[in-house]
Amino acid sequence: MTVELITTGSELLLGRVLNTHVHWLGRRLADLGKPISHHVTVPDTSEAIRGAVQEALSRADLVITTGGLGPTSDDVTRERIAELLGRQLIYRPDIGDSIRQFFESRQRPMPERTRVEALVPEGATAFINQHGTAPGLALDLSPNPFRTGGTRSGLILLPGPPRELQPMFDHQVQPWLAEHFPPSEAFVCRTFKTTGLGESLMEGRLESALAPLVAQGLQVGYCARVGEVDVRFVARGVQAELLVSAAENVLEQAAGEFVFGTGDDSLEEFLVRYLSARSLTLALAESCTGGQLANRITNVPGASAMFLAGWVTYSNDSKTRQLGVPSSLLQEFGAVSEPVARAMAEGARRESGADYAISVTGIAGPGGGSEEKPVGTVFIGVAGPQGTTVQQQLNRFDRPTFKFQTGQQAFNQLRRQLMKDQGPA
Amino acid sequence: MTVELITTGSELLLGRVLNTHVHWLGRRLADLGKPISHHVTVPDTSEAIRGAVQEALSRADLVITTGGLGPTSDDVTRERIAELLGRQLIYRPDIGDSIRQFFESRQRPMPERTRVEALVPEGATAFINQHGTAPGLALDLSPNPFRTGGTRSGLILLPGPPRELQPMFDHQVQPWLAEHFPPSEAFVCRTFKTTGLGESLMEGRLESALAPLVAQGLQVGYCARVGEVDVRFVARGVQAELLVSAAENVLEQAAGEFVFGTGDDSLEEFLVRYLSARSLTLALAESCTGGQLANRITNVPGASAMFLAGWVTYSNDSKTRQLGVPSSLLQEFGAVSEPVARAMAEGARRESGADYAISVTGIAGPGGGSEEKPVGTVFIGVAGPQGTTVQQQLNRFDRPTFKFQTGQQAFNQLRRQLMKDQGPA
Repeated sequence: MTVELITTGSELLLGRVLNTHVHWLGRRLADLGKPISHHVTVPDTSEAIRGAVQEALSRADLVITTGGLGPTSDDVTRERIAELLGRQLIYRPDIGDSIRQFFESRQRPMPERTRVEALVPEGATAFINQHGTAPGLALDLSPNPFRTGGTRSGLILLPGPPRELQPMFDHQVQPWLAEHFPPSEAFVCRTFKTTGLGESLMEGRLESALAPLVAQGLQVGYCARVGEVDVRFVARGVQAELLVSAAENVLEQAAGEFVFGTGDDSLEEFLVRYLSARSLTLALAESCTGGQLANRITNVPGASAMFLAGWVTYSNDSKTRQLGVPSSLLQEFGAVSEPVARAMAEGARRESGADYAISVTGIAGPGGGSEEKPVGTVFIGVAGPQGTTVQQQLNRFDRPTFKFQTGQQAFNQLRRQLMKDQGPA
Repeated sequence: MTVELITTGSELLLGRVLNTHVHWLGRRLADLGKPISHHVTVPDTSEAIRGAVQEALSRADLVITTGGLGPTSDDVTRERIAELLGRQLIYRPDIGDSIRQFFESRQRPMPERTRVEALVPEGATAFINQHGTAPGLALDLSPNPFRTGGTRSGLILLPGPPRELQPMFDHQVQPWLAEHFPPSEAFVCRTFKTTGLGESLMEGRLESALAPLVAQGLQVGYCARVGEVDVRFVARGVQAELLVSAAENVLEQAAGEFVFGTGDDSLEEFLVRYLSARSLTLALAESCTGGQLANRITNVPGASAMFLAGWVTYSNDSKTRQLGVPSSLLQEFGAVSEPVARAMAEGARRESGADYAISVTGIAGPGGGSEEKPVGTVFIGVAGPQGTTVQQQLNRFDRPTFKFQTGQQAFNQLRRQLMKDQGPA
């Protein structure tokens, strides 16, 4: 099945808005066994949109467009596609009602021109927008007039804002695709999130044990991110579920301690879930990461159940005053040292009363390094009911990547301590 | 001048890597008066890359490709484009040397296959890569063999990693473009960053005063982001500099207090620069933003000169213990209240000894709201040598947007207090 994506909007080409649709939809569609093979961004002019849709329909089994479904004059996708296909636009009172309700529930007047969003091309399925007003639209073109031989194609029009598009795709488009374009054979895809082992080391651990499964058709993909490696198993056909389950067992046996989640999970989501479920609490004492760990933990809804307090002790004085780090330690070993990391973690645990505390002290750069402690040196402490461990790392990256990578290592150090103290997830 | 962008890489289409090139290059090229009119992403197969380049060259004055210049088997851009243009690839010893030095300075062995990166199509300009190994390449196709009439076109090949591409574009590609494809007339573009006034209110303040300049050819663009509005002035021709300078004066007169920077400046960069220059210091006391403000401030190199300490006092107990917020205040008014915001800011200033302190307390959601204090309610305090101010805001967004918008408001509240206490930037 060939899939093409057309993202519309001059603001995307002028660099005013970051286009995240390829990334998000690309992953979803690949996981459904329908990978995108071609993507184009065009300005929101009638000519460009009509041209791009006709060209994509001449080639692809499935064409998805994003944007241009709103009520303003530069929203022309719905109209141009209806024209291209020679279909009438018909007013759908039920959609009109849902749009009116959207404005009523927010106590805002409904602009008259929003009415165009209730127009639907003849024969199209409409997906009511749960997070905005313009519905998505899907057409089963059977036959597709632009393909030689009149092959059948699907055409799906999605709204531009990610917060509208993403839930619509998951809850409405996927079932429509499953009904209208079911996979010709079983397709199973599962991604596992791992941390603490590099891509080639992970591959080395799994390779020989996976070989017999690969010989039977299993596909294995590795994707390295900052401080993480995704392991993805894909199989097709009657044996698909069997092959992926067997691969999952191999991963569990050979590298289970590095797996922290599936799909889109993050380390911070894992920690919030794990600690909350056991009524355990966390405190954070950060120097060089400057609040990055706290910010990531508090991005997870429900973090307030397990996160008590964080300190960003950037100056030496604040390490002493807030966390009780003895100034003798700072003088003797320096702020970036094993004893200071230990004292920070223990101070944060004591001051907050939390069950566990993480501390981070290091040199983010670009300045501040020395021969003995080069830029990128970090000490990470984890204090808990069984004592305190400190690990040294060397992370030579630009400043934001340094902070993120250090965060990954710190969260993983806590995760491994929790596995040891409290048992598996 | 028509410009087309071709981003190559199957990982982009499969959603493994977020494609930021359109966003970054789109903005740069628009600011040079050479906006991108068409963008395509293709897999890294020979056929797809050759097809996309030939098609783009048949239409555009300038074609830019990204990716596929590395040494592995799926890096085919250089070879396929040389074939397409019928040009030999010639080994350039100077590039070979610079690649060898790259590995030597990192004390890593140079993989033999990296040698292909020193191959350059006949007649191409090579841009030595300052942050990686593969050079960028530029060809002045005069005539362009794929365009009727043999019009002239530029073809530029850039490496895929953003940290390599971005400095290469700014320092090497821009001068090449200026030499080979100079603008046919003067082009001036300046963007001003503003905060504290919505897009339509900003437009309302400027519209009538800018009207005579617009009549003479000035273009005005507004771009609303979370908590910011960019105001962009563009003009062409002999009067270009005059028109943009006059527009700048209008902005200064009508809304100068909302302008905090130019180009890509951020509010946190402004604050780090402003406070450091005056040897003033800052502390942060965050509840609902959970370390976001501290993380943003410490993303700016040099933040350690002005940032002393931050607290993430997520629990009531930590507000009392760390910042000395009286528990009677918490009981009487609740944690999300004007008096608690005031006490947090004053506590952070006192505990850290900083000149200024910001406090934030609010309800990020999705849970935790009430009729009196709905989700999105925030109190922001700024304590300084002249006393403490607290402002209430209502930010109804998803959790990460809530945190970012609240951060914008908090930074802007401090910025305005600094203007009052310490004078303009």
